[in-house]
Amino acid sequence: MAQPHKLERGLVQVYTGNGKGKTSAAFGAALRAAGRGFKVYVIQFVKGGFDYGELHIAEKIPNLKLNAFGRGKFITETPPAQEDVHFAQEAFDLARKVVEGGEYDMVVLDEINVVLNLKMVGVDEVVGLIKSKPKHVELILTGRYAPAQIIEAADLVTEMKEIKHPYAKGVPPRKGIEY
Amino acid sequence: MAQPHKLERGLVQVYTGNGKGKTSAAFGAALRAAGRGFKVYVIQFVKGGFDYGELHIAEKIPNLKLNAFGRGKFITETPPAQEDVHFAQEAFDLARKVVEGGEYDMVVLDEINVVLNLKMVGVDEVVGLIKSKPKHVELILTGRYAPAQIIEAADLVTEMKEIKHPYAKGVPPRKGIEY
Repeated sequence: MAQPHKLERGLVQVYTGNGKGKTSAAFGAALRAAGRGFKVYVIQFVKGGFDYGELHIAEKIPNLKLNAFGRGKFITETPPAQEDVHFAQEAFDLARKVVEGGEYDMVVLDEINVVLNLKMVGVDEVVGLIKSKPKHVELILTGRYAPAQIIEAADLVTEMKEIKHPYAKGVPPRKGIEY
Repeated sequence: MAQPHKLERGLVQVYTGNGKGKTSAAFGAALRAAGRGFKVYVIQFVKGGFDYGELHIAEKIPNLKLNAFGRGKFITETPPAQEDVHFAQEAFDLARKVVEGGEYDMVVLDEINVVLNLKMVGVDEVVGLIKSKPKHVELILTGRYAPAQIIEAADLVTEMKEIKHPYAKGVPPRKGIEY
């Protein structure tokens, strides 16, 4: 897995919508890029402190780095707890450093849309980062409720749309499948 | 990565639609499951003979097996060439063996919808496989144009919908990103 030449033009990809597969798509893209020798950094917003299946694979891939922030639970309060806001801002500070540094060829900001929707990080700040990113960096943003400004600033947007879902309310996610 | 207990109930997931991320979502799901110690088998229809980024990662994961069939190019002729039909049927024969064997906890049939849409494999055969699969096996089918009978037979269906796409016609896919 020799380091390839830089991408000629890194794009900004967004995976949003209420359907399954947003994080998996970003994670699959990260692994494909890593398989090509690209340096990849995955920053998970609101997912820290929790045992995710993908973590077990990420640690086996030498050129893929992953940091998860948050308390390992969904944020349901509005406004969100101060502790959650703190984690989100810490995650975004890291995101900015990693993107602007230009060392990583692909940066995934997993669930950042959720954080933006709850106004835990300013949309303008993220749009600013998109506009000022080094040209070669591929940036992937995931999460429900992508704000219109993010969709506007992105190059490639996919909506994961739920067509059919088996879970009655309250059925717990399955280990190894949903997490 | 000890072998976990079997899934209590494996579901049938479908990723379809014209948007980006279908194969990546399935591949991300496969890696998440493999990270949990599940045995995973990925069968790629119509993708063989081509250097895909994900192959470089798959070979590093001990409990993930991947076989790709086909000539490494998109099938555009209608009816498809006899050689392509042969590959598709060979891939489906393997799929049937792997699913029915029950040794694997998750089986991904990547791009099978494309093959079904071109009538290279009979939809009834795939619906039959879905109905008769061992209970613990999680089955994931991807590709554009999922037939109505497949959506009907599946538990969980996500449509990847293209909202925005940067490519003018003829711009080639980028190594490490699109493949």
